[in-house]
Amino acid sequence: MASAQFDKAAVREVLDAVRAEGRDALTAPEGKRVADAYGIPTPKEGLATTAEEAASLAGDIGAAVVCKIVSPDILHKTEAGGVIVGVQSPEQARDAFDTIVANAKAYNASATITGVQVQEMVGGGHEVIIGATTDPTFGKVVAFGLGGVLVEVLKDVTFRLAPLERAEARSMIDGIKAADVLRGARGTEPVDADALADVIQRVSQLVADFPEIREFDLNPVFASGSGAVAADIRILVETGEVSEPARPSQEEILESMTRLMNPRSVAVVGASDQEGKIGNSVMKNLINGGYAGEIYPINPKADEILGRKCYSSVADIPGEVDVAVFAIPAKFVAGSLTECGEKGVPAAVMIPSGFAETGNQELQDEIVEIAHRYNIRMLGPNIYGYYYTPQNLCATFCTPYDVKGGVALTSQSGGIGMAILGFARTTKMGVSAIVGLGNKSDVDEDDLLTYFEQDDNTQAVAMHLEDLKDGRAFVETAKRMTTKKPVVVLKAGRTALGARAASSHTGALAGDDKVYDDILRQAGVVRAPGLNEMLEYARGLPLLPTPKGENVVIITGAGGSGVLLSDACVEAGLSLMDIPPDLDEAFRRYIPPFGAAGNPIDITGGEPPSTYEATIRLGLEDPRIHALILGYWHTIVTPPMVFAELTARVVEEAREKGIDKPVVASLAGDTEVEKASDYLFDHRIIAYPYTTERPVAVLGAKYRWARAAGLLGQGRA
Amino acid sequence: MASAQFDKAAVREVLDAVRAEGRDALTAPEGKRVADAYGIPTPKEGLATTAEEAASLAGDIGAAVVCKIVSPDILHKTEAGGVIVGVQSPEQARDAFDTIVANAKAYNASATITGVQVQEMVGGGHEVIIGATTDPTFGKVVAFGLGGVLVEVLKDVTFRLAPLERAEARSMIDGIKAADVLRGARGTEPVDADALADVIQRVSQLVADFPEIREFDLNPVFASGSGAVAADIRILVETGEVSEPARPSQEEILESMTRLMNPRSVAVVGASDQEGKIGNSVMKNLINGGYAGEIYPINPKADEILGRKCYSSVADIPGEVDVAVFAIPAKFVAGSLTECGEKGVPAAVMIPSGFAETGNQELQDEIVEIAHRYNIRMLGPNIYGYYYTPQNLCATFCTPYDVKGGVALTSQSGGIGMAILGFARTTKMGVSAIVGLGNKSDVDEDDLLTYFEQDDNTQAVAMHLEDLKDGRAFVETAKRMTTKKPVVVLKAGRTALGARAASSHTGALAGDDKVYDDILRQAGVVRAPGLNEMLEYARGLPLLPTPKGENVVIITGAGGSGVLLSDACVEAGLSLMDIPPDLDEAFRRYIPPFGAAGNPIDITGGEPPSTYEATIRLGLEDPRIHALILGYWHTIVTPPMVFAELTARVVEEAREKGIDKPVVASLAGDTEVEKASDYLFDHRIIAYPYTTERPVAVLGAKYRWARAAGLLGQGRA
Repeated sequence: MASAQFDKAAVREVLDAVRAEGRDALTAPEGKRVADAYGIPTPKEGLATTAEEAASLAGDIGAAVVCKIVSPDILHKTEAGGVIVGVQSPEQARDAFDTIVANAKAYNASATITGVQVQEMVGGGHEVIIGATTDPTFGKVVAFGLGGVLVEVLKDVTFRLAPLERAEARSMIDGIKAADVLRGARGTEPVDADALADVIQRVSQLVADFPEIREFDLNPVFASGSGAVAADIRILVETGEVSEPARPSQEEILESMTRLMNPRSVAVVGASDQEGKIGNSVMKNLINGGYAGEIYPINPKADEILGRKCYSSVADIPGEVDVAVFAIPAKFVAGSLTECGEKGVPAAVMIPSGFAETGNQELQDEIVEIAHRYNIRMLGPNIYGYYYTPQNLCATFCTPYDVKGGVALTSQSGGIGMAILGFARTTKMGVSAIVGLGNKSDVDEDDLLTYFEQDDNTQAVAMHLEDLKDGRAFVETAKRMTTKKPVVVLKAGRTALGARAASSHTGALAGDDKVYDDILRQAGVVRAPGLNEMLEYARGLPLLPTPKGENVVIITGAGGSGVLLSDACVEAGLSLMDIPPDLDEAFRRYIPPFGAAGNPIDITGGEPPSTYEATIRLGLEDPRIHALILGYWHTIVTPPMVFAELTARVVEEAREKGIDKPVVASLAGDTEVEKASDYLFDHRIIAYPYTTERPVAVLGAKYRWARAAGLLGQGRA
Repeated sequence: MASAQFDKAAVREVLDAVRAEGRDALTAPEGKRVADAYGIPTPKEGLATTAEEAASLAGDIGAAVVCKIVSPDILHKTEAGGVIVGVQSPEQARDAFDTIVANAKAYNASATITGVQVQEMVGGGHEVIIGATTDPTFGKVVAFGLGGVLVEVLKDVTFRLAPLERAEARSMIDGIKAADVLRGARGTEPVDADALADVIQRVSQLVADFPEIREFDLNPVFASGSGAVAADIRILVETGEVSEPARPSQEEILESMTRLMNPRSVAVVGASDQEGKIGNSVMKNLINGGYAGEIYPINPKADEILGRKCYSSVADIPGEVDVAVFAIPAKFVAGSLTECGEKGVPAAVMIPSGFAETGNQELQDEIVEIAHRYNIRMLGPNIYGYYYTPQNLCATFCTPYDVKGGVALTSQSGGIGMAILGFARTTKMGVSAIVGLGNKSDVDEDDLLTYFEQDDNTQAVAMHLEDLKDGRAFVETAKRMTTKKPVVVLKAGRTALGARAASSHTGALAGDDKVYDDILRQAGVVRAPGLNEMLEYARGLPLLPTPKGENVVIITGAGGSGVLLSDACVEAGLSLMDIPPDLDEAFRRYIPPFGAAGNPIDITGGEPPSTYEATIRLGLEDPRIHALILGYWHTIVTPPMVFAELTARVVEEAREKGIDKPVVASLAGDTEVEKASDYLFDHRIIAYPYTTERPVAVLGAKYRWARAAGLLGQGRA
């Protein structure tokens, strides 16, 4: 939808007039002018100053009309006898005009009577709400929901960033829980979804073109098989200044992040040889972690620290410094940061706390100002530091981490960062980066995403966040990134729905979390419901190949696990393949007569390794199957490690033939299944003991990403 | 609601007439007679045979009426001009009578005209549905939902076993998602919930009194502030025989289960000294497990097995035999079982497979018949056996398990049984019993619950099940049991909602899982969403003391964990306490000025052990706080084991003073937090590393049980 097709000048004129008068709400006629300028359908109407004009207008409208007095002196039109509904013909309109004017004069003899508004009566079909509001994180968002109880009591409403594409607008109509109502459930006429999507798109373009429109409601919109008409319009504008956040270009971000992650030299401001000091831990981790670049300890009281020549100031370092890691008390940071600026250090890693998080916003503002002045990109403050394993870089006071792999993790909270580290270590999770974001005074998630997007060492990203500084920048980057690599987000504070003060319906409906949820999904992000899920997705997603279609097959030795795995598939949004007869027959050849083909394929509990092997191989080799879920049952005939080894071997053989499908497994058995699960994980088969849910949830996360990335043929939505 | 107050004879007469005619549906007047007999409010009405009678009826009704032709020859009343709505006065009723009769004669001159029905017009308020259906598992269930889109598209409906108490009926009105609508959301008048509950109760009593009523719909019922009126009644009856399942008495069950779990002697039918044979594993497990009763191996081909004298048949055993464990092929079971019957063995444990699960229903029916004939209670067939640790009894072919503790677990599937065993062993879960139920040809969940209810060795029960043989017996037992001890159920197949063929609205809405969900909750059962949750609840619930109220407080060292723990509380249905000012001040005394009191109480990351200790102690000692959730952040100042030991000590000290509150903990840190979590678990503090969700979920499960058991002051509902 090209913005050029709209009459922006008309809208500009209306808004300027409203703002000039210091008003924050548009009148109904002003709202109508705005709607008309953007082609948002409203009831046909006109102003009649004579009974003949009323009759003529009614004739032009060609449907039932409502006639309403228009007078600046009459506020309560109905009370004044100034409204007549259900006017069916030009003749009736003529009579209605006369009656209304007479009533109005009787009500207030001195009232100035502008005329009588003759308006098409709308109604029928379904009442829906289309709106827009200004979200503190994401800026302009549009909303769509069914009118009445559904949206008000059940909060069945969906949001997207404005402006949006047609497909996104369509996805909103399908995105509410009660979508079936609009598709014609209960024998009603299905709505014209294209017409509705068109209105949504026009509204989204309007608020994008005019940022001073703070809130916008079309409520109700009558949607039917023949179109959509907005019966009431409410528009609220900002009375103050409207500004957009300034952002560096993607090239600038990429350049500075590349330097941060791949520094040729690191200075440690506050380096120490005293055990237990942060400046000592950072030095040791850099050295012991195997970082190959230059390390410059900075400490005015030492000549050498851990065998490295020590400088009293960054200024004294002979060579260039790419990153300065700060390990000094907050009060000394500003001075040292200025020295870094003078020296031309492009990146600072601010481990110290004592800034905004302890209420000292002023000190944080001061260092942000210094960083801006010198064009220094700053991580933190109040962080544990960061790891980037491809460079053997452990610029943190925690313990080193060296299991290299494909996932980059970030966390806003230090506690969560420590949980990431512990989990990673105990599961031997392959990691490219772990980055603390802390107070996010400068570098934030979208800066890092911009780097990870093009980083060949990173195949997936997992982020813990409590808020986004600039939701729109995040979405733009994530949207691009997620076409290539999965991004998992754990959004904390998801259930703390602070009811926002809002003067419009849409504004009141936009609880933070629902907006986050819809817009993160719109960006192709996989949202993790909790910390443990984020960690498990981070561990599993880079190992799983991308499925090529939706056909998931369960092969299980335990019927009981099969039922639970099926439940888990529904929960995870996976589709159990409808097995075609020839394939069914092929599976039956390997399983006992009382086993169940179909899906789950129940090979039954007493089977030897060869049955697992044959059925798994068939599942891998048949091109109609896109992913396998295995349910193993510990027996004497097929012990856990035998199952693990045969499965790994069969999967490996398929990979050698170029068949690489996602395979996940649930192992039910005695404690030996733990070792077997680890073995499978080591062979890129996502396996867990004592749970049917977790392997399926990880596969489901991969599918959610692949679907959103348009890799399964549905296109993005 | 005493059943005696109803006119059962009238209902009996109607139903007998319908069944005598071979019909399965009642006519509207028959439905009305049934409703009247049970005081179910319907529109006032009467049959007028003259215009005067019509006027008089309209006067008696005293409200707007609708007049309808009554004629066996006129099916399409409206087409015949036989319906006039909105009749406002006796005069209008008189005219309406004449008009209708004239229209009817014009429509069909030869029609017999019985008269004109004069009926109160109902409408306004909210349309709700009250119904009843016959569930294959639970028998008669009642349903309640809002009419229209909500119930039909969003399936917002709730079920309970019939008959029900007033409080249960009230809980249905509060139990739908859109309950706020009935409480007067959107400025509408709140409904008279007592009047609605009264109708629900009457319907529930009706279907309980007359099992031949298969399905029952009141749709719509108009509910307003002044009452509830059913505008339409639909009743379907069984045309065939209606029978209730026969059940042994609770005393009989308890006696036989006590003998099964505490046998003085066990015979192993099919005992073997050959490694790898099931009969060998069972013998070894009985002996090595330390079972102190008599063990009788049965095998015609051996004189002695594992040092025990062997008998060729159960008949040859000199003493009494309490339990016979079968480890022989299916085809030999019937013969040996008959010998057990002749010998008077009261319980058989049927490990063999090859019965209904492999399609051999006939063989299963045969052994069930033998068991019935000889009054043998039978576990299985197709099971791994059972463990009862208080008797050191491992009557299974799996490995022995000896960590004694308070939870009894059962599983319908062998695979899930193996997962229980492995999980128990790796977490050192204290167990009283693990029982395989397999094909459940005889002994089922409610038999075992009856035993565990009074078993002092069992403090909680966790059950994996795919179906219930007799849902009503289960609910009755569970309802009694859950007032004393938690019962956790993992219902597999929860998402496979087979759409049932049903002729009524209520019947169509009763997807299996929603009925299970509501009725298990009605029974006070805690439903686990998945296998891993069932296992974690089983492990944690017996360790946690019962909370005394709803005030939950989070004390955290990591602000980030605090936010996630709050999210988890909302998810788990827990209420974060509103900290009163004096308590807030008391906490503030211990935490840094930039820490956050309130709830979560954020003591901040850099604090020494003394801060954790002081705040945890305060949380335990203040009687207004009922449960604590701890968020630990791994630091050098307070390492994991220091935190674990101080927490265990402070909690122990409080227990010694008689203060025993539930305490759960989430540990974020490097791998040392795993050992610290284990230590805490050993001290009855539910602790997990790398997850904020799991400890809160276990606490939430304890609360769900305590609330349902009426232990938190709300009473059962």
